[in-house]
Amino acid sequence: MKVPRTKTMLQMKSQSHPQQVKEPQGRQTKTAIMIIGGAEDKVHGREILHTFFARAGSRAAKIAIVPSASREPGAIGERYWRIFAEMGAKEIKAIDIRDRAQGDDQQWKEYVANCTGVFITGGDQLRLCGLLADTPVMEIIRSRTLAGEITLAGTSAGAAVMGQDMIAGGGSGEYPNRSLVDLTTGLGIVPEVIVDQHFYNRNRMGRLMSAIAIFRYRLGMGIDEDTCALVERDGTIVVMGKGTVTIVDPGEMEYTNEPYVTATDPLSAYNLRVHILSHGDRYNIRSRKVIMPEHRKNVS
Amino acid sequence: MKVPRTKTMLQMKSQSHPQQVKEPQGRQTKTAIMIIGGAEDKVHGREILHTFFARAGSRAAKIAIVPSASREPGAIGERYWRIFAEMGAKEIKAIDIRDRAQGDDQQWKEYVANCTGVFITGGDQLRLCGLLADTPVMEIIRSRTLAGEITLAGTSAGAAVMGQDMIAGGGSGEYPNRSLVDLTTGLGIVPEVIVDQHFYNRNRMGRLMSAIAIFRYRLGMGIDEDTCALVERDGTIVVMGKGTVTIVDPGEMEYTNEPYVTATDPLSAYNLRVHILSHGDRYNIRSRKVIMPEHRKNVS
Repeated sequence: MKVPRTKTMLQMKSQSHPQQVKEPQGRQTKTAIMIIGGAEDKVHGREILHTFFARAGSRAAKIAIVPSASREPGAIGERYWRIFAEMGAKEIKAIDIRDRAQGDDQQWKEYVANCTGVFITGGDQLRLCGLLADTPVMEIIRSRTLAGEITLAGTSAGAAVMGQDMIAGGGSGEYPNRSLVDLTTGLGIVPEVIVDQHFYNRNRMGRLMSAIAIFRYRLGMGIDEDTCALVERDGTIVVMGKGTVTIVDPGEMEYTNEPYVTATDPLSAYNLRVHILSHGDRYNIRSRKVIMPEHRKNVS
Repeated sequence: MKVPRTKTMLQMKSQSHPQQVKEPQGRQTKTAIMIIGGAEDKVHGREILHTFFARAGSRAAKIAIVPSASREPGAIGERYWRIFAEMGAKEIKAIDIRDRAQGDDQQWKEYVANCTGVFITGGDQLRLCGLLADTPVMEIIRSRTLAGEITLAGTSAGAAVMGQDMIAGGGSGEYPNRSLVDLTTGLGIVPEVIVDQHFYNRNRMGRLMSAIAIFRYRLGMGIDEDTCALVERDGTIVVMGKGTVTIVDPGEMEYTNEPYVTATDPLSAYNLRVHILSHGDRYNIRSRKVIMPEHRKNVS
């Protein structure tokens, strides 16, 4: 690892990962998938965006910005372009796909085949999936991410699309029920999870609980604003930023009435496991366990 | 049991309670503590209020209404008076205590010493505790409730006061943190629980999670509007009404950062057990287990 490291990277390094998958030789950075709950700090410490920049190769980074979730892709693309330019990225392009045909654009396919980091902005996750799902550009991004060749970050709508099953929208202020959440298919980057974002900020526990009662084989992940679940290659997530990441694990759920009730009936769900994680906390989405340093066991 | 039974009571009776504490001889009804999440149906089916009426003795009921949480105790007292009169209660009085001295009123002490049911209305739980905590009138209500002599119901503020530790107020739309919740002392009727009401309706999961990270020996109970956790004498709660009762059990919590962080820092809480319960579901607050009919085990 020859690239300059930020303080955040040093902090991460100081806690060792015995199960860490070995990075392919010649790669200069440890790639990750960064699921960001929206409204990440773009002005002051920029901890999350700095970490993306570092994990994408720092000054050697070739970054692709995907602004297609937004109805103002030009403006939002430019905003992130300026941020990463200011940090000193080697090359930055906004992959401004506005119709599906552009998802097969030769120039963009070549760029994402050679970039080191992809950043998916906020907007509308349905728009994003509609424009990008199964296009050649997205397939290159997806396969390179899964191969650990690039760091992929998504914020807000860009976070929502990470799972195989996706929350497209929904309501708040009601007991958990099926009509509270619209579910569809995401990009399947981290298929284990169903992501919800702006989590406590927009009071989305009810809809995430509803989603989990329906997709009982998934793991619910509610991410607050200016907060990131950074997924390492071994499935460990590290929490960064200002708020919390809430994990709703239905792995031990003994019963739900979900198959038997109407869309507006209240849902039952017995024996959910819930973890509220904040800065520095670690959890493995494959083992479904919190990774707890020994000195931390303070509750008997 | 000679009193006429409502359909609800028959439904409850049909599922047997092997651990049920025997009722004192001579009592005509099975008393309960009813913790209602606010905004209970007062017009149509009135399921929850009917159940209170039935559990208080039906047409033999002598009901005390405690409207002291409200700033308009006269109006709210009268509203419930009319409801229970329409149902056919034998005697109804509003115990309209407006200063602490009245909590020693001889006439009211005699009335609550002989009544069969007490209904505490909504309003402000701090006002209610300020006026009533430790007064002779409340001590009679409390000790007769704990002895199983009367049915006690509280809605909204009247529900909040049920625990020994009480949520007095707080915010929403933020990650769990200590400053999100104001905690004080309640009336200690069901000391095991910390109650929050209007639960999903007012998006209070964040503040209940915060309260539970602080009071780790309690059980969090979030009750939706027009929903009731009916507490039987053996500690079994039965859920009634339109929404859900959310149980947050920190009994297996392995870690929280709560002792080490500032009031506005995000809280971590590992390994919470959460149950979402709806109509007809049963849970025992002493064993901290869902009571599940065998035929219901649908999730492997």
